[in-house]
Amino acid sequence: MSKNKPHKSALSKHEGVSQNETTNRAAISKFLNKRNKDFSSDALANAIVKGDTIALSRAITLVESTNPKHLQKANEVLAKCLPYTNNSIRIGITGVPGVGKSTFIEALGNNIANNSSKLAVLAVDPSSSITKGSILGDKTRMEQLANNPNVYIRPSAAGTSLGGVARKTRESIILCEACGFKYIFVETVGVGQSETVVHSMVDFFLLLKLAGAGDELQGIKRGIIELADAIVINKADGNNFKNAQKAKVEFNRALHLYPPKPNGWVPKVLLTSATESTGIDKVWELIEMYVDQAKKESFFSKKRMEQHTFWLHQTIEDRLKSNFYNNEQVKKALHEQLTAIENNQTTPFAAAQYLLSLVSK
Amino acid sequence: MSKNKPHKSALSKHEGVSQNETTNRAAISKFLNKRNKDFSSDALANAIVKGDTIALSRAITLVESTNPKHLQKANEVLAKCLPYTNNSIRIGITGVPGVGKSTFIEALGNNIANNSSKLAVLAVDPSSSITKGSILGDKTRMEQLANNPNVYIRPSAAGTSLGGVARKTRESIILCEACGFKYIFVETVGVGQSETVVHSMVDFFLLLKLAGAGDELQGIKRGIIELADAIVINKADGNNFKNAQKAKVEFNRALHLYPPKPNGWVPKVLLTSATESTGIDKVWELIEMYVDQAKKESFFSKKRMEQHTFWLHQTIEDRLKSNFYNNEQVKKALHEQLTAIENNQTTPFAAAQYLLSLVSK
Repeated sequence: MSKNKPHKSALSKHEGVSQNETTNRAAISKFLNKRNKDFSSDALANAIVKGDTIALSRAITLVESTNPKHLQKANEVLAKCLPYTNNSIRIGITGVPGVGKSTFIEALGNNIANNSSKLAVLAVDPSSSITKGSILGDKTRMEQLANNPNVYIRPSAAGTSLGGVARKTRESIILCEACGFKYIFVETVGVGQSETVVHSMVDFFLLLKLAGAGDELQGIKRGIIELADAIVINKADGNNFKNAQKAKVEFNRALHLYPPKPNGWVPKVLLTSATESTGIDKVWELIEMYVDQAKKESFFSKKRMEQHTFWLHQTIEDRLKSNFYNNEQVKKALHEQLTAIENNQTTPFAAAQYLLSLVSK
Repeated sequence: MSKNKPHKSALSKHEGVSQNETTNRAAISKFLNKRNKDFSSDALANAIVKGDTIALSRAITLVESTNPKHLQKANEVLAKCLPYTNNSIRIGITGVPGVGKSTFIEALGNNIANNSSKLAVLAVDPSSSITKGSILGDKTRMEQLANNPNVYIRPSAAGTSLGGVARKTRESIILCEACGFKYIFVETVGVGQSETVVHSMVDFFLLLKLAGAGDELQGIKRGIIELADAIVINKADGNNFKNAQKAKVEFNRALHLYPPKPNGWVPKVLLTSATESTGIDKVWELIEMYVDQAKKESFFSKKRMEQHTFWLHQTIEDRLKSNFYNNEQVKKALHEQLTAIENNQTTPFAAAQYLLSLVSK
């Protein structure tokens, strides 16, 4: 929350009211902060570290910008925030549309926020870069959670590449951590490789599923079952309960296809009904159990360092490729070489050698 | 076969004999050719195009060499052979040890060679680069096939990387095609990513399986089912026949998980017994049907061009990475940057940016 005086006092008048918050706190402080447009990176970082979510939003906007000036400022803010990070639990949540993801996140999120823990909800949605829509839209999908003062919801970062979206989300996580958020949810609908991307930036990866025969085969096929630390079969209520129990057996069998995870964690299958709020507490217990075990055996920080290393190399390789293929000489020669290959005049390997020689000159 | 006079006349004496060949023709011509050690690339290419398998073996040895001089000569030979290529049918065959791969290849291969078509058998075996053993060893595994004058068997190329082995195998295919081999088998045991590598250099990909409950899940998990143009359940004989029929149903179900292939081909599941030689003709009919359809709809050449493009980019990207990581400055700084990330002093993205700046200077 903002530390500006007028905002603070206005809010305190509402503190004791038990009814739902009807004032949009974010809008108020946004209005009050409007005049201070040119925050320095120092001021931004200081405000973030003090828990100012308006400053946090501004910094995330910088991270998401394509303007080189903004990116430079974003890097300055990030550098100043770094010492205050790594204190959160990052939880990845994925599931196809219709699985009840919003309701589930709302139920699990309220569980956290009502225990006065601060929760940030971010999203990775590669499809938004095409449709220009954003997964969390105007937050209407999670109304109750959005109004909780302990919760910060940020719509999905858009971008031209999954790599770009990944960078933005990872840097947003850093900023949220510096801002004091103890729990960070990273949500994805699972388009393209987005589950893999989210998996490589979270501590715990949760796969939401519905009861449905054969669905576990799809999960195996797409390599998603392998990523899961827990599989939650949602909508396990009413007539659906029996099917959900059957699905639990099937998913447990599918999990047995994989060797144990390096940390010895055996993924679990749980049943929930987000609408009836059953099973949510069990999910939370499981996540806490995992984190306890991971921290005790120092696997927690080891996994984070592996993720850092992964992203370092990923970024380097993406850039090497784009530098090469955007070279004007290569662009022209690539087309010629492909034609030569098609006409049986050269091999792919000789062509590659030739193209590489253009750049090393 | 060599075109040297003494060899030719010696061979012609055996032509009409219906019994198994007892003379090792390769050994004879090797002996006769022994004195001409220093083949020029012109002479090698000319001999290959005329069907000389001794010259073919020499050229493949050049392709496999790590000596830069040999590689240059190999490239010259390849360039001269290129106009004579693209006339073969390339068939990838994979299956775990114990599936009866050698017996199957021998049965299918004899089917081809006895119809006076020339067949070359190559192998991709990434494990051989570690064990220094070669998958086809001394050809003893396929004794009958190895003695067939229409058949050329080349043990696996070794190499330090799958990419290197892939290049050598692809270039060997080119040489075999120039040498007049109409059919080329590329065999692999399926270690690491070798199935994917072989799949990306053949026209038809055949997956050998045994009857065994749950095995189709492993195939889905490893992404191999998706690659198959046909699944052949081998050892479908005796007590095993019933299980094989059950496995056929399971694999057909697994195949339904995938969308139809771009060329409209629907993968088939067949039963064979390589030891009893049943079902082999059906496999052959299926391959011929596929090739007919692929050529009629010009998918055949389209797929080959896609494979060329894939290997062009793969080679470029491998080289870009190795050039970068072998840079002395990068090597030193990479370690420092990883430590800085671990100590929360920088982000993977900032570190990547810094490392890339070292090279672009």
